[in-house]
Amino acid sequence: MRKTRQILDMNAFAPGDAAQTPEVSRRLGNLGAASVLFYRDPIEMVRAEGAWMEARDGRRYLDFYNNVPSVGHSHPAVVAAVSDQIGRLNTNTRYVVQVVDDYIDALKAILPEALANVVMTCSGSEANDLALRVARAVSGARGVIVSETAYHGNTDLVTQVSPSAWKQGSGPDWLERVPPPSAGEDFEASVCRAAAALQRRGHGVAALLVDSIFSSDGVFADPPGVLDAAVAAVRRAGGLFIADEVQPGFGRTGSAFWGFARHGAEPDIVTMGKPMGNGFPMAAMAARPDHLAAFCRDVGYFNTFGGNPVAAAAGLAVLRVIRDDGLQQNAARMGARLASGLHRLAATSLRIGDTRGAGLFLGVDVVDPDGVPDPDTTSRIINGLRDEGVLIGAAGKYGATLKVRPPLCLSADEVDLFLAAFGRVIAG
Amino acid sequence: MRKTRQILDMNAFAPGDAAQTPEVSRRLGNLGAASVLFYRDPIEMVRAEGAWMEARDGRRYLDFYNNVPSVGHSHPAVVAAVSDQIGRLNTNTRYVVQVVDDYIDALKAILPEALANVVMTCSGSEANDLALRVARAVSGARGVIVSETAYHGNTDLVTQVSPSAWKQGSGPDWLERVPPPSAGEDFEASVCRAAAALQRRGHGVAALLVDSIFSSDGVFADPPGVLDAAVAAVRRAGGLFIADEVQPGFGRTGSAFWGFARHGAEPDIVTMGKPMGNGFPMAAMAARPDHLAAFCRDVGYFNTFGGNPVAAAAGLAVLRVIRDDGLQQNAARMGARLASGLHRLAATSLRIGDTRGAGLFLGVDVVDPDGVPDPDTTSRIINGLRDEGVLIGAAGKYGATLKVRPPLCLSADEVDLFLAAFGRVIAG
Repeated sequence: MRKTRQILDMNAFAPGDAAQTPEVSRRLGNLGAASVLFYRDPIEMVRAEGAWMEARDGRRYLDFYNNVPSVGHSHPAVVAAVSDQIGRLNTNTRYVVQVVDDYIDALKAILPEALANVVMTCSGSEANDLALRVARAVSGARGVIVSETAYHGNTDLVTQVSPSAWKQGSGPDWLERVPPPSAGEDFEASVCRAAAALQRRGHGVAALLVDSIFSSDGVFADPPGVLDAAVAAVRRAGGLFIADEVQPGFGRTGSAFWGFARHGAEPDIVTMGKPMGNGFPMAAMAARPDHLAAFCRDVGYFNTFGGNPVAAAAGLAVLRVIRDDGLQQNAARMGARLASGLHRLAATSLRIGDTRGAGLFLGVDVVDPDGVPDPDTTSRIINGLRDEGVLIGAAGKYGATLKVRPPLCLSADEVDLFLAAFGRVIAG
Repeated sequence: MRKTRQILDMNAFAPGDAAQTPEVSRRLGNLGAASVLFYRDPIEMVRAEGAWMEARDGRRYLDFYNNVPSVGHSHPAVVAAVSDQIGRLNTNTRYVVQVVDDYIDALKAILPEALANVVMTCSGSEANDLALRVARAVSGARGVIVSETAYHGNTDLVTQVSPSAWKQGSGPDWLERVPPPSAGEDFEASVCRAAAALQRRGHGVAALLVDSIFSSDGVFADPPGVLDAAVAAVRRAGGLFIADEVQPGFGRTGSAFWGFARHGAEPDIVTMGKPMGNGFPMAAMAARPDHLAAFCRDVGYFNTFGGNPVAAAAGLAVLRVIRDDGLQQNAARMGARLASGLHRLAATSLRIGDTRGAGLFLGVDVVDPDGVPDPDTTSRIINGLRDEGVLIGAAGKYGATLKVRPPLCLSADEVDLFLAAFGRVIAG
């Protein structure tokens, strides 16, 4: 077994990798150790539209990596909504502004009815940070269960439940990690064991927090329904089920608007972010009013930028585009086309292992000739695809799973273009 | 002495206060216990421009409360910058995008030279959350010193150092609170005592974290230089000085661009937020490269929305407007006019105690006839000013200090209009 790689570093530019351009040197000087540039020879982007990004040198890239501009880069409906609202009013939730409640109403209409309160935040990190505290206030317990290579954000609390961001250490005593529901894993049994361990150590169970497509674990979407028994076990232990929809939400999985809905599991709290405003910084937590009230008894919560009317206008535009352009249905159709193409290619190459996922979120395992996860070949494929004009990234415990995550507005031609490029790279 | 009031609740709408309009009922249903509406009869806003906000009923309000739209509501230069950039490219820091580094360079040009790394985040909360972890990584200690009624944000970690958000409890064992540098308080002595207490309890000193205008404590700006000896004491104890510039930064104090600069104190870390993008959700932490590297050895940090090019474009526009329109100088001039008018009015009323501050950030103590802080009269003044068409809020340990915080583009006529309204309300 290979050493676990830290996901955030996968595919990263490292100083010394290549001759540095002045632009790259400037970035490294500005962000220092927190620099996260991609590729040995980082790309300078100047514009983007639909599924395409364009570099300074005129080269165009098909974006199979960035899941934030989910309805398409620079979507005119989102651009118009933001430009219009920011020119009229941008303020906070201390005043009534109709577009904010229009948006929350629109979200509530597609969320489980019990989750009638929505707290708007700026980032998925803030939403998960809040969700964990709500779960602790409700349960009176401290313990949290997440998947083995989970990523839930960047605040102090949320980093502690994000093993994929750790460079060392094994996490807090109140945390238990379970393998994702992959072949041969009994997810319910793992969660039961984890809950028992937390109770034995005196922490109790506050929450099971999972991204239902287990993206940073390497994309494990199946079988639908696999979460149900585990969620029931967590509830028996007094904990809440927090569905982190930052990755699978907003139609990406094709068969449902939310990742949890695809599994038929009913969450106690839903958090969302990334594609919510197609790049406008916004996120949210939806919870039961009595649960939110339990948290608010101890502490006041105000988020200056959370729930500003420009975010609400962006969010409304995103929901409308997903509905009017049938993007969830397109994710299902294009996802099927993509998956069958990938399966076809996998049959021609010993370096492609399992291919899995849902809708336009697929994971492709890269292996060595003995079938062992192979991060070096993964890196070669990522860089080869970049040379072919395709952006893609990796995930998983070994950093050896390609994360295939194009915008939901993808066309059949773009699917075929990717498959052709992928075929050339894995044959090369 | 009166009971300390939780600042976040000051001036809040409480269900049952008044007949609820359908809009207010809808908001309460949507945000539940996390609702933060202002006024017994909340205001529905529809547009805003310069120092003015306009309600649905056509009523216009002079905004002396909201410090986010600091260069003026709906400023055309910021609107144009956001509209232009969001229509071309909105992505993350995994790619080089010039406007992002242009912005960081512009910030660095006005920050202490040693703070050469800037990590962009979505909110001041995220920036302070990160800053505390950097300070802990650098110092190897856990203890934090903040002011008595501090507010530094809403994440789990940052809420623990924000006494003004607590409804109960006394904070973590690794926290020490010191009175703000008001009359009769020896700030250095308080900080030394706090540092000694943290060391005695085995936590050590990671950081002194202060907003240098002590806004949520009730606005304590003087004397300039009061921080210096305290900062030196913290450094001797092995801790860092984190200047939280979310409130005093970006020219508001008139005499300097940053609050810490007004005090001549050199911070180890600077955090900023609120007015940075004039309402576009953005914030940042500036730190020394070796300090940031110490943090990044343990954990990866990536912020999806942090450092997006639209935020950078908004931030650049804000810096340009502050410079080109001379807003720091205007804050000094208008602040002086406002302060002298308030002093004049204070002399006519027994209910106005101390008036203090810097530039366009003033605190006005409201007292009962015996000179005791009087939150009820403060609330009466806030509501009276609302009837006069002026928005204002309160702060301080007793919720009895009016927080006077208009946009930096304020005109002399607007100052006089406020003073006339304030005079009528305190005489009433």
